Amino acid sequence: MNPAYAPTFAVREVVVRALAEDVGPLGDLTTALLPVPDAQVRAAIVARADGVLAGRQCAVEAFAQVDPSVGVVWHADDGDPVTAGRSIAIVTGPIAGILTAERTVLNLLSHLSGVATLTRRFVDALMAAAPDAGASVRDTRKTTPGLRALEKAAVRAGGGRNHRGSLSDGILVKDNHLAGLTIDVAVAKARVLYPGREIEVECDSLDQVRQAALVRADLILLDNMSPAEVATCAAWLREALYPGLIEVSGRVTVDNVGAYAVAGAKLVAVGALTHSAPILDIGLDLR
Amino acid sequence: MNPAYAPTFAVREVVVRALAEDVGPLGDLTTALLPVPDAQVRAAIVARADGVLAGRQCAVEAFAQVDPSVGVVWHADDGDPVTAGRSIAIVTGPIAGILTAERTVLNLLSHLSGVATLTRRFVDALMAAAPDAGASVRDTRKTTPGLRALEKAAVRAGGGRNHRGSLSDGILVKDNHLAGLTIDVAVAKARVLYPGREIEVECDSLDQVRQAALVRADLILLDNMSPAEVATCAAWLREALYPGLIEVSGRVTVDNVGAYAVAGAKLVAVGALTHSAPILDIGLDLR
Amino acid sequence: MNPAYAPTFAVREVVVRALAEDVGPLGDLTTALLPVPDAQVRAAIVARADGVLAGRQCAVEAFAQVDPSVGVVWHADDGDPVTAGRSIAIVTGPIAGILTAERTVLNLLSHLSGVATLTRRFVDALMAAAPDAGASVRDTRKTTPGLRALEKAAVRAGGGRNHRGSLSDGILVKDNHLAGLTIDVAVAKARVLYPGREIEVECDSLDQVRQAALVRADLILLDNMSPAEVATCAAWLREALYPGLIEVSGRVTVDNVGAYAVAGAKLVAVGALTHSAPILDIGLDLR
Amino acid sequence: MNPAYAPTFAVREVVVRALAEDVGPLGDLTTALLPVPDAQVRAAIVARADGVLAGRQCAVEAFAQVDPSVGVVWHADDGDPVTAGRSIAIVTGPIAGILTAERTVLNLLSHLSGVATLTRRFVDALMAAAPDAGASVRDTRKTTPGLRALEKAAVRAGGGRNHRGSLSDGILVKDNHLAGLTIDVAVAKARVLYPGREIEVECDSLDQVRQAALVRADLILLDNMSPAEVATCAAWLREALYPGLIEVSGRVTVDNVGAYAVAGAKLVAVGALTHSAPILDIGLDLR
Amino acid sequence: MNPAYAPTFAVREVVVRALAEDVGPLGDLTTALLPVPDAQVRAAIVARADGVLAGRQCAVEAFAQVDPSVGVVWHADDGDPVTAGRSIAIVTGPIAGILTAERTVLNLLSHLSGVATLTRRFVDALMAAAPDAGASVRDTRKTTPGLRALEKAAVRAGGGRNHRGSLSDGILVKDNHLAGLTIDVAVAKARVLYPGREIEVECDSLDQVRQAALVRADLILLDNMSPAEVATCAAWLREALYPGLIEVSGRVTVDNVGAYAVAGAKLVAVGALTHSAPILDIGLDLR
Amino acid sequence: MNPAYAPTFAVREVVVRALAEDVGPLGDLTTALLPVPDAQVRAAIVARADGVLAGRQCAVEAFAQVDPSVGVVWHADDGDPVTAGRSIAIVTGPIAGILTAERTVLNLLSHLSGVATLTRRFVDALMAAAPDAGASVRDTRKTTPGLRALEKAAVRAGGGRNHRGSLSDGILVKDNHLAGLTIDVAVAKARVLYPGREIEVECDSLDQVRQAALVRADLILLDNMSPAEVATCAAWLREALYPGLIEVSGRVTVDNVGAYAVAGAKLVAVGALTHSAPILDIGLDLR
Repeated sequence: MNPAYAPTFAVREVVVRALAEDVGPLGDLTTALLPVPDAQVRAAIVARADGVLAGRQCAVEAFAQVDPSVGVVWHADDGDPVTAGRSIAIVTGPIAGILTAERTVLNLLSHLSGVATLTRRFVDALMAAAPDAGASVRDTRKTTPGLRALEKAAVRAGGGRNHRGSLSDGILVKDNHLAGLTIDVAVAKARVLYPGREIEVECDSLDQVRQAALVRADLILLDNMSPAEVATCAAWLREALYPGLIEVSGRVTVDNVGAYAVAGAKLVAVGALTHSAPILDIGLDLR
Repeated sequence: MNPAYAPTFAVREVVVRALAEDVGPLGDLTTALLPVPDAQVRAAIVARADGVLAGRQCAVEAFAQVDPSVGVVWHADDGDPVTAGRSIAIVTGPIAGILTAERTVLNLLSHLSGVATLTRRFVDALMAAAPDAGASVRDTRKTTPGLRALEKAAVRAGGGRNHRGSLSDGILVKDNHLAGLTIDVAVAKARVLYPGREIEVECDSLDQVRQAALVRADLILLDNMSPAEVATCAAWLREALYPGLIEVSGRVTVDNVGAYAVAGAKLVAVGALTHSAPILDIGLDLR
Repeated sequence: MNPAYAPTFAVREVVVRALAEDVGPLGDLTTALLPVPDAQVRAAIVARADGVLAGRQCAVEAFAQVDPSVGVVWHADDGDPVTAGRSIAIVTGPIAGILTAERTVLNLLSHLSGVATLTRRFVDALMAAAPDAGASVRDTRKTTPGLRALEKAAVRAGGGRNHRGSLSDGILVKDNHLAGLTIDVAVAKARVLYPGREIEVECDSLDQVRQAALVRADLILLDNMSPAEVATCAAWLREALYPGLIEVSGRVTVDNVGAYAVAGAKLVAVGALTHSAPILDIGLDLR
Repeated sequence: MNPAYAPTFAVREVVVRALAEDVGPLGDLTTALLPVPDAQVRAAIVARADGVLAGRQCAVEAFAQVDPSVGVVWHADDGDPVTAGRSIAIVTGPIAGILTAERTVLNLLSHLSGVATLTRRFVDALMAAAPDAGASVRDTRKTTPGLRALEKAAVRAGGGRNHRGSLSDGILVKDNHLAGLTIDVAVAKARVLYPGREIEVECDSLDQVRQAALVRADLILLDNMSPAEVATCAAWLREALYPGLIEVSGRVTVDNVGAYAVAGAKLVAVGALTHSAPILDIGLDLR
Repeated sequence: MNPAYAPTFAVREVVVRALAEDVGPLGDLTTALLPVPDAQVRAAIVARADGVLAGRQCAVEAFAQVDPSVGVVWHADDGDPVTAGRSIAIVTGPIAGILTAERTVLNLLSHLSGVATLTRRFVDALMAAAPDAGASVRDTRKTTPGLRALEKAAVRAGGGRNHRGSLSDGILVKDNHLAGLTIDVAVAKARVLYPGREIEVECDSLDQVRQAALVRADLILLDNMSPAEVATCAAWLREALYPGLIEVSGRVTVDNVGAYAVAGAKLVAVGALTHSAPILDIGLDLR
Repeated sequence: MNPAYAPTFAVREVVVRALAEDVGPLGDLTTALLPVPDAQVRAAIVARADGVLAGRQCAVEAFAQVDPSVGVVWHADDGDPVTAGRSIAIVTGPIAGILTAERTVLNLLSHLSGVATLTRRFVDALMAAAPDAGASVRDTRKTTPGLRALEKAAVRAGGGRNHRGSLSDGILVKDNHLAGLTIDVAVAKARVLYPGREIEVECDSLDQVRQAALVRADLILLDNMSPAEVATCAAWLREALYPGLIEVSGRVTVDNVGAYAVAGAKLVAVGALTHSAPILDIGLDLR
């Protein structure tokens, strides 16, 4: 059990849906042309670029659903680096089953490995710039609809941490909430209604930071600030002996993620990890 | 009925799943802090970058599922250009419903508009370079699992064409099939088994192109060739009076898409449209 | 992998539904009366009439879902002829599991074999009358709701070909479309929007046939014509050097299917294959 | 609420599935060619043969799911006779929605009306031959997988009665059960385990009839007997003052159904009602 | 096959749902802290109170869905008594899988065993007070939504009998129906529409009992009567040679259930079996 | 939007399932006997005991799914007290729809109101004994499978707080985890992996309490201790200036819940709220 794995039920659900969608009602018309569909073949799943693997369970499940006699031997697990041109796994079994599952397997592996790879780039950049800051990269709720559990697992595979799984498992007071709520009321009410739960407040200005610190929000999310602005807020919070965590979001790139950590952020939230990661190119080569 | 819309059943299914995933078992903890959850507010859905809209139906459905009393007035439809800073729609209704649906709405709109926007960039580049070529940009089966119907609709919104919906609705003989099949057998067998269906053959070399043309494949997919190589193949095919369509895939970028059309491709298949499109940044601003 | 098999996901989905429906909330009240429910028995699945087998995967799946310890040894595969009184398969295992699954297994086998059997009758009649015509029998979208993938597989088992899997995978301009569209606009627009896809036009008269041929529709569907009328249209098309395929539909029976092929149809679409096939009577006899 | 209607949840489930299956991932390619998809049209749902209507709820639901602005005015309800050439309903609304829903609507209406029509033929034949017998036609569990609730409703629309809904709601000891159970033990045990539930015993011979009557089975199902054999059994049962009901199954046709009632059967079970009913031909004509 | 088992499909469906609900999108955060998640451990499922076991299939299914390598050896089957402090089963396998499945397994076992235990208490009390009455305890439709099949199986495990599985499988004319229907019309109509099905009539008074007996309802349900009132009705029915069964409901407790049987009830319906049974406390102890 | 409401998607899902389960394939046989099924009636939903309402949304949804023309006017909302004999709502509409939905509506209302009522009893007892303790009653993950979201909402209606929604949204190190993990490692690792999330440690002894406090677990769960033992632990923690929250679980009853609060617990977790709450008796009376 790799802690970067997604819950089994989520893997199964996504794979059932993905296969139904990709195979369609008439089955794989092209593969049905093969004269010997059960001919045993050997294929390699190969990275065509460097990156980080994620989604191995999905590949296992997809082959199993199409043809349980397909076997897969893995050379890497979720979270491991993969190298362009090197095989990630060897697949053996009937050619028809392997080819029918191929695209679903690759779509899942390459999308999720893309998320893990981008996460790793952010993590590495942060660690290079601020190795002792004790800071982490986090995902957001900006995930691809239907794939949250898998994408959040891929973020873990890339070395990132998970923010909320859903609106049910964390309080984050954002700017739009403040249209109908003040920071102090929000935190006070949340303390009563949700005892023992972290309370995070998004702040756009030092003034809001002060309000949030005053009522002892557990986390303060500095949104859309430059590293310099973050440093100012962090300095103020340090003086105020604020015991919580500083998180930043918005405007974060691989180039400046380290600067945010240096500036005092313990958590750097990056929506792009899940909403804009390009795939890691992965192919399947019949031998 | 905009032809760039996805089938209604697909919209409903994706939205049900997305909301369940994002709201979670305890509901929206933060929004539940609002003292007047039914306070009527007005919000704008705003593009934060230039691009092309897609996913409008999803936004409508998501608001309706969370709170049918939320109203949305649109300033743009799927396929329309949107401009950074300009509002796409005005949303009115109870603040709680709007905020609970917000992330699901934005995740869908920004992902699908990202696909439409990238498609439009490819289409525009192709048209600029080869306005009279009569060539089109096509998607592939490299879609995000669970979202095929919606992403293929977003490609249409961007001005692209759809390739196969699934393995059931088109024959495409790829390199891996040729491990167990020759081109002439594949095409001959497909003509018998699938009368009236297009037959496409992926070719990596001029030699394969000759074989495919000889057996009158309806489409020839030139994979991973440079524009120059495509031009060579196209010249040969022209001489051979090949009546079918030339498609290219692999290595295509916004920069060279036009060159492929100039070289003779009538269809340019771009997996990145759906597997690597960054989101179009779209936000919701309470007024 | 028999090419007449349906996609695995479709088999699983239908069987889950069928068993839930047939077993009900309290389980099999009658079988629960057996004093020794785990008594090992041997049963034969027996054809009670001559026909063609289809649905074998469904039977395997249904027994497995009810009791994975039930074993089945098959004497025939989908597409094989079966003879009245001869056993199709031998089933061994606990009596309770076999009896609880019995009706679901038989309902699926007998319905799908009914479709395959009727298809084979049409195919045989066509081949007897027009052995050298190179014509085929095709199904339509007139399938039983929820069973399309399985019924289309059964048509293949019977030697028929599949028409569209859904509205997504083929253009067929029918009479009702012509209320809002002319044939030439339809074909021209489809060529642009759906490059590489077959375009079929339903024609009720020679005049429409001329229009469709003029714009080079890939297939012309002659609807509700007699063989003589088809022959007239086919003669005209031959003279016009029309390169596409002629399909007929409507009024086709086992008695006249050959006449249509002789008249020039390359494809004979028969809705009755899936909407009106009586079952092939199949029973299960405990030994 | 017509008692021949199926439960609402079943109608919804079947229609969702049927539409997803028929529309497919890319939507209705042909209808998308219409220049004015929202053009208001008027269409008639027309019977092309005489019969009995069933499935009206399904048609309503299918149009509503595709486009809620489509309106339907009905001239007949489930169970009403329909006449070839006469309109069953008038449909008005946008042409695109009507054409996309058309096949799903017609597949459901024509299949279910086929069941109702065949049922009515059996019922009418029985009543003509034995008007005073107080006998009824019943369905069986030989229904099309996934459509049981709808087909059993169609049987009611045709004037038939429903046998068991599932294995959970009635005891029917069949020949295969007797491989592991005697009739007297079965009935005795069932009386204890299922107090207040009907117990039916299938009998192939007068000897079995005697056993079943002796233990006071509530119903005796005479299987695969001729009317004369049924008469013999019925006479014996009358003498034995058997208070239960006599049902027959197997070998029943429209021609002999009356003879079975005359012979003493109060219930005539006909699997063909649901497993082999040809459709009632119903079309949709745009005006 | 224990007749107290629920249908397999119902077990699977409930367990899939229960696990998805309990594990959530990010997986088991706490178990993911284990340094050696695959460490093999041995655990006992232990009753913490005396009772009757039910739900064993659910436990098997839940462990299998989380980690198929977990093994379970059972010391008791559904319907068996369990004793406080004694182990019901021994579970062996990877610690992570066992701990992630633990709560789902225990929630199902303890809820269903709670139902079985309460049922057994009613059954024992009835048998102690009226050992020769031939009376039984029955459940009702007052089950926990989504769990009917499992709870009705648990009632069987406790020695109770099942009343209707749904509104589809039995006629029970209740007081609210009599707002629109008289008893004699109801029974007469039901005899025609539902031949061979039991007809039960709920009666609140001796007058209603007379009406129901007159029209020979198969069962008479005396609702909310004291044992004395039941005795009065039973005496009247005995004199009237009423051949059906007397059932009682309402006001029944463990203390008076025997008195109802003594008074003449053959069936005692107890909603509390499924709507108000406290759990049987069951835990999992790692060894 | 009452914050005690469950998420809409959860309400819909549960009601769809509950109705399908309760209505069954043949529909409501008894209600189908009504001569005038559309007769308009008026009914009251009436509490038959004092308690707290929960589940109103479910009732609304169930009536709407069965018959959208049924109207409901409510006299109470979730969280409001209801009094024996007083009406909670007035329902008007066609008698058939109301009677078919009746049991599903009542099963949901009475189960969820049972949870809310028991919660309120614990809350009231705690407040009576320790009005100034600032302590709350919490639920656990011991919920009825499939109903977690609804039961947790009912706990809120009763004035309780929600503990974790799932294993994904909180760290709780329990005794079984300690078989493979020490408290200090668990907390240290969780701080790194799950920044900003509460970490709770279950302790069975003062020694464990010391370990947990030393590593600054956010919450300490004292399991299966008496109020006196809790007081001892709390005193020690106060001296140690432990800033986190003390929660207790196990052995808590309505009688001693106040004593736990007096002893120093800020949170009292009660599994019985959801696993053993008897229903609140609620009926529907036709007027």
